[in-house]
Amino acid sequence: MASKLTISAVNELDYGEFIHKFGNVVEMTSLCAAAVCARRPFSSFDNFVSEMCQFIDELPKDGRGGILRSHPDLAERLESLTPESQREQTEAGITTFTPEEIQQLKYYNRLYKEKFGFPFVICARLNKKDTILEGIQTRLNNDGDQELKCGIEEVKKIMLLRMKDLVECEDSKL
Amino acid sequence: MASKLTISAVNELDYGEFIHKFGNVVEMTSLCAAAVCARRPFSSFDNFVSEMCQFIDELPKDGRGGILRSHPDLAERLESLTPESQREQTEAGITTFTPEEIQQLKYYNRLYKEKFGFPFVICARLNKKDTILEGIQTRLNNDGDQELKCGIEEVKKIMLLRMKDLVECEDSKL
Repeated sequence: MASKLTISAVNELDYGEFIHKFGNVVEMTSLCAAAVCARRPFSSFDNFVSEMCQFIDELPKDGRGGILRSHPDLAERLESLTPESQREQTEAGITTFTPEEIQQLKYYNRLYKEKFGFPFVICARLNKKDTILEGIQTRLNNDGDQELKCGIEEVKKIMLLRMKDLVECEDSKL
Repeated sequence: MASKLTISAVNELDYGEFIHKFGNVVEMTSLCAAAVCARRPFSSFDNFVSEMCQFIDELPKDGRGGILRSHPDLAERLESLTPESQREQTEAGITTFTPEEIQQLKYYNRLYKEKFGFPFVICARLNKKDTILEGIQTRLNNDGDQELKCGIEEVKKIMLLRMKDLVECEDSKL
């Protein structure tokens, strides 16, 4: 992995480099980075994260839904993983799913997408397979507005971890 | 080119297919399609276009700036075109730029980016090289807010033409 940027280095990137670097911290939604790069200079890593979160919250409601719809299906992704990359996910917190568990996840995900119109998003690096399988069943009981909020909170958790991989953050309180 | 979709077919796409099909009608900003797909069913092509425009207008101001920053530089793009693709651009309305004119465009574009923080965006298919070279010089006199508005109007013109390539639109008034 390339070395992490200091926040000063982040502040000095030209906008093209900035978008290239941070375009996927919100999965497939480079507009977040493209927008927030105009809010520089950031005073700290946490300030950068906070501006990203604020931009997401300021989007029209269906823009936040659009962020969720831009995420790949977790169930389909797990199914297409090679054993090696399943192991990588494992190291990141997911215990290997059995084929039966993947089928179970796909079943609930189908119900979930029918109900909400976007896929189930969860920060896999902060969960184990049991909490993922429990999570999708519990969250299926939410109404649309609650679940939009829940999904976006997970997007922000994923984003934070990806940003921590890219930027020096020893002083972070997040 | 694949055959065009009717508006009914557009309304029936699942969200993944919809984002795949319309993700780049606003250059590198698939969030627009990902958001607007939840506003279906569209009553007509023009209604679809109008919802896309409305989503862009509802974005936070730096979100609209982010759309402009997601566009490639016209000058650099022209420079990297092969003779064949320059001819395609030519057929679409741009008379072939000479190397000197490309240098001129690059010069103004550098000034433009320094002033506004995003690249000069113009609907090339509706312009000739003279109006492009004039346009960038004139628009350099705008203030930031005027130019954000101007650039976004061009984004919408480009989007409309791309949407017309993808969807049946005989009944369009646009």
